[in-house]
Amino acid sequence: MDILVTGGAGFLGQQLIRGLLDRGGIELDGRTHGIDRIVCFDQAAGALQDARVHNVAGDISDAAVVRGLVGKDTGVIVHLAAVVSGTAEADFDLGMRVNLDGTRHLLAAARAVGTQPRLLFSSSIAVFGGDLPAVVTDATTPTPQGSYGAQKLIGEVLVQDYSRKGFIDGRSVRVPTVVVRPGLPNGAASGFASGIIREPLAGKPALLPVDPATEMWVASPRTVVKMFLHALALPASAWGWHRSVNLPGLVASMHEELDALRRFGGDAAVGLVRHQPDEAVMRLVRTWAGRFDTTRALAMGFRPDADFASIVQAYIEDNPHAVTMRA
Amino acid sequence: MDILVTGGAGFLGQQLIRGLLDRGGIELDGRTHGIDRIVCFDQAAGALQDARVHNVAGDISDAAVVRGLVGKDTGVIVHLAAVVSGTAEADFDLGMRVNLDGTRHLLAAARAVGTQPRLLFSSSIAVFGGDLPAVVTDATTPTPQGSYGAQKLIGEVLVQDYSRKGFIDGRSVRVPTVVVRPGLPNGAASGFASGIIREPLAGKPALLPVDPATEMWVASPRTVVKMFLHALALPASAWGWHRSVNLPGLVASMHEELDALRRFGGDAAVGLVRHQPDEAVMRLVRTWAGRFDTTRALAMGFRPDADFASIVQAYIEDNPHAVTMRA
Repeated sequence: MDILVTGGAGFLGQQLIRGLLDRGGIELDGRTHGIDRIVCFDQAAGALQDARVHNVAGDISDAAVVRGLVGKDTGVIVHLAAVVSGTAEADFDLGMRVNLDGTRHLLAAARAVGTQPRLLFSSSIAVFGGDLPAVVTDATTPTPQGSYGAQKLIGEVLVQDYSRKGFIDGRSVRVPTVVVRPGLPNGAASGFASGIIREPLAGKPALLPVDPATEMWVASPRTVVKMFLHALALPASAWGWHRSVNLPGLVASMHEELDALRRFGGDAAVGLVRHQPDEAVMRLVRTWAGRFDTTRALAMGFRPDADFASIVQAYIEDNPHAVTMRA
Repeated sequence: MDILVTGGAGFLGQQLIRGLLDRGGIELDGRTHGIDRIVCFDQAAGALQDARVHNVAGDISDAAVVRGLVGKDTGVIVHLAAVVSGTAEADFDLGMRVNLDGTRHLLAAARAVGTQPRLLFSSSIAVFGGDLPAVVTDATTPTPQGSYGAQKLIGEVLVQDYSRKGFIDGRSVRVPTVVVRPGLPNGAASGFASGIIREPLAGKPALLPVDPATEMWVASPRTVVKMFLHALALPASAWGWHRSVNLPGLVASMHEELDALRRFGGDAAVGLVRHQPDEAVMRLVRTWAGRFDTTRALAMGFRPDADFASIVQAYIEDNPHAVTMRA
C-alpha cells in the first residue's frame, strides 16, 4: 500500500512517517497492511532518507502537482499541509490558497483515482471561537474567529461531503494545540505555549505574552501522531454520518507549564521566561476554547496525554540535542 | 447607489428587483438610498426592462466575468445565484463550480473594490440534515446531508470571515423552502411542495411523492423578498459576531397544503394531485429539518407568512395568468 502525507516535511509529518516506518505497516479496520511507499509531500523536500520514502517538493495550491501525487495504489492520504493560524490571518490570500484551494485539489485528486482512498484531514480546535460555552462538546457549533479556523472548517465540510458521496473515506480530527513543538518558532498564534518550554530548555529566553492563568487545550506531538494512526485505523462505521471529531487533550495553564519547566529545567530555565503581556495575542487567545468534553472521541478509543509533565518528558526524549538546561 | 443581484433573472431575483424599482430606493441602517442602477446578473438575461436595470448574462463561475460586475458604486450585493439542491446532488462538479467557486469569485470581487459593500447571501435550511433535534435553533450545528447544503454552508463560513476581516459587510439568511414557486418545475428536491399547488391551479396534474403528513418549513416568495430587504436594512450591529440566521417560516404539512388548494381551487384541483410515493425523495426529505425556533430572527424583526392560505393567496395575486382553476 502507498501512503501520501502532505505537509510531510513538518515536525508532525516527519514523526508520523518515522512511526510508520518503525512499525513497518499501517492498521486499517483491524488488519495490518504492508507499506510499499510513503510519498512525503511538502514545499521543501523532507529530510527523512529511506528506500520506502519518496520526498516530493511542490506547491499544494497547484492542482496539476497535487493530481500527480495520488495514484490507484494510494490507499491512505494524511493531509497535514497548512499555513498556520498567525500566517493565515496576516496573509489572507496565502491562507486561502494553501488551506482551502490546496485541500480542494487534494480531494479532487483523491476522487479522480476512483478507489475511494482513506483520507485523514488534520483540522483544529481553531474552528471554535467567539461566544463559546464553558465546555465545548461535539455538539457545539464551530464558529471560527480567524481565517485559519474558517479554512479548516470548510475543509471539514468538504471531507464530509466527499465521504457522503463515496468519493473518499474521509475523517477529520480537530487537533488540540500541539505542545511542545520542536524546532524554530513558527507563525502559529499559539506558539508561545511551546516556546516557553522549548526555548528555556535550550538555554534561550522566551516571552509569555498572556496571563499565566491562561488555559489551553493541548496534546503532545507523540500523542497526536498516535491519534492520527487511530483515526485511520477505525472502520468507517465508527465515524457514522459525522466525519469530524474533537480530539482529547489536556487543560494546561501557563502556570502548570512553568511548573513542569521548573521540574525538568530548574529555576534557571524558568528565569529565562519573561512575562510581557501582548494585548493582541491575549485578545485572540480569549476567543479560543480552553476546555472540551470529548466523550465521543474517548468512546472511539482516542487517548490524551497523561499530564503536562509527561508532555515535557516526551519532548526531551524526542529532541535530546535541543535540550541543554536540565534540573 | 448601484445594486448587484446575482441570479437576478430567477423568480426571486425578479420579484426583488421589481420591489426595489417600485419602492424607488433601498433602506440601509434606517436611511433610504436612491437607486441609480440595478445590475441583474444571471446565466440568461433578465426579462425586466427598465432604464435603471442593466441585464447582464454570464457565467458566475468565471472569475473575470464576476470581477466586472462589482464597482466602487456597488453599495449592495444580493447573491441569489445557485444551482438548486437536486441538480447539485446529481451533478457534483456543476454544484461546486456555481455554488462554491461562484460565491468565492463574488466575495473576491466585492473585496477588491475596497469599499466594504453590503452583501446578502441567500443560504438555505438545507445546511441542516441528519440526526437533528425535533426543533432546530440558531445554536444547532449545521450538518448538511447534501452537496447543495454543504456548498451553502461553506458560503456562510466565507461570508462570515470576509465580514470579520472587514472586506465586506455580509449577512447570510437561511431561507425556508420557498412555496409556491412560480414557473416551470426546477431541479429542487423540494419542488413537489410548490408543484402540488401550482400545477393543479393551472389545470395540470401533479405528483405528491411523500406521505401527506410530511411537514416542511416554508415561506412565500413575497415574504422571502421582504426578509431579504430587512436583512440588508439592518445595521451591522444587529448581526454582531454571527452573520448567519435561520429565517422564520411556517410548518406546513402536505395535508395543509391540499386543504389550501381545495379552498382556492376546489375539489377538481385537488383531484389533479396523485399520491405516488417515491422512496428516494422520501429518504431525502426525512433528513430535512421541519420545525425551527427562530427566536433570534424574530427579535431582529424578521416576520414569517401568516398562514398557508395567505401563501396561496399571494401566489394567485402575483401570478394571475398561471391560475385557471378557481373554487
